[in-house]
Amino acid sequence: MNQTFSSDLLNKAVEEFAKLPGIGHKTAMRLVLHLLKLDENAVDQFANSLTNLRHNVHYCNRCHNISDTPLCPICANPNRDETTICVVENYQDVLAIEATTQFHGTYHVLGGLISPLENVSPSDLQIASLLQRIQQEPIKEILLALSSTLEGDTTNFFIYRKLKDIPGLTITTLSRGISINDELQYIDEVTLGRAIISRVPFQTNP
Amino acid sequence: MNQTFSSDLLNKAVEEFAKLPGIGHKTAMRLVLHLLKLDENAVDQFANSLTNLRHNVHYCNRCHNISDTPLCPICANPNRDETTICVVENYQDVLAIEATTQFHGTYHVLGGLISPLENVSPSDLQIASLLQRIQQEPIKEILLALSSTLEGDTTNFFIYRKLKDIPGLTITTLSRGISINDELQYIDEVTLGRAIISRVPFQTNP
Repeated sequence: MNQTFSSDLLNKAVEEFAKLPGIGHKTAMRLVLHLLKLDENAVDQFANSLTNLRHNVHYCNRCHNISDTPLCPICANPNRDETTICVVENYQDVLAIEATTQFHGTYHVLGGLISPLENVSPSDLQIASLLQRIQQEPIKEILLALSSTLEGDTTNFFIYRKLKDIPGLTITTLSRGISINDELQYIDEVTLGRAIISRVPFQTNP
Repeated sequence: MNQTFSSDLLNKAVEEFAKLPGIGHKTAMRLVLHLLKLDENAVDQFANSLTNLRHNVHYCNRCHNISDTPLCPICANPNRDETTICVVENYQDVLAIEATTQFHGTYHVLGGLISPLENVSPSDLQIASLLQRIQQEPIKEILLALSSTLEGDTTNFFIYRKLKDIPGLTITTLSRGISINDELQYIDEVTLGRAIISRVPFQTNP
């Protein structure tokens, strides 16, 4: 549904909302009509929270995570292991890994993945600053936690080649295998095949 | 997922987005991170389109449709039949009926339905101004096009009682029945039962 409405103001607001990813014209209309029912202050508050964020957003000087302070709360936390860096694509990946409570090191947010198709080259990402960190800080382990996609594998390999000759640096990656609770019959054959190749000794208390 | 993020600005923007109907925290985060990637002007433009609409929205003086002008384009159109008024709940209903191109009269947008549960009484709706229009304009037909819900039926009946004794005024409602292309076996029994009761002569060219 992409019709013109009886009001240019309405039209404009719906068009703007519909530019957001995953928001079609029908949803945009529903959201805009919801905002119309709110009082003016609430709408101003909504709009201001967005412009405020966009104009005043800062990134951590060290790991490039979104942060209001020069060092993000994770980098500033003395209890985190500063010798281990987990390399991730974006901010959501930091949230996902933090939610597991299984990682106690620091992060490095690349801000994307190498993608010739989308014109993203290594210099568009925070790779140089990762190498700089490794030179300046006493880093022992780099955990490459990128998606197992073409772009993720390309970026993994690019970073691996830069790091592989640094003495005393361990490079690790997330283990691949069958998800907890997955039923064998529904697993794709590549994942199942790799899980067989990289089988591990049986443990009663893994 | 309702966690606190590493940035209060981000947190605030996500919270505001998640207040919108049908937008959860995960979607809100995705939308906010999308806005962060846009340039500042694009975000300002998005935010301004919303505050602009909310502060400057006008409603048609006659039918209460959303409009930038004192009379909405439908009311101002001399080709529309001004003797027929279609009574609808809201702006989306106007769009839905206009999309059929089968209605050539004017509208009256109530702005809601009578609902004791949600504390909406007749005085909260544009019912008085509907009665005023009927007194002042040469209205021949009122088409009640409200949803077939408890609230819709209550509102229909309330308006019907106000209008039924006005001489020369026809009160109609949308016909109920089986949707075009519906398969009989999937139709709920109330709709199917009513379609049997209100059966009509067979026509080869309906």
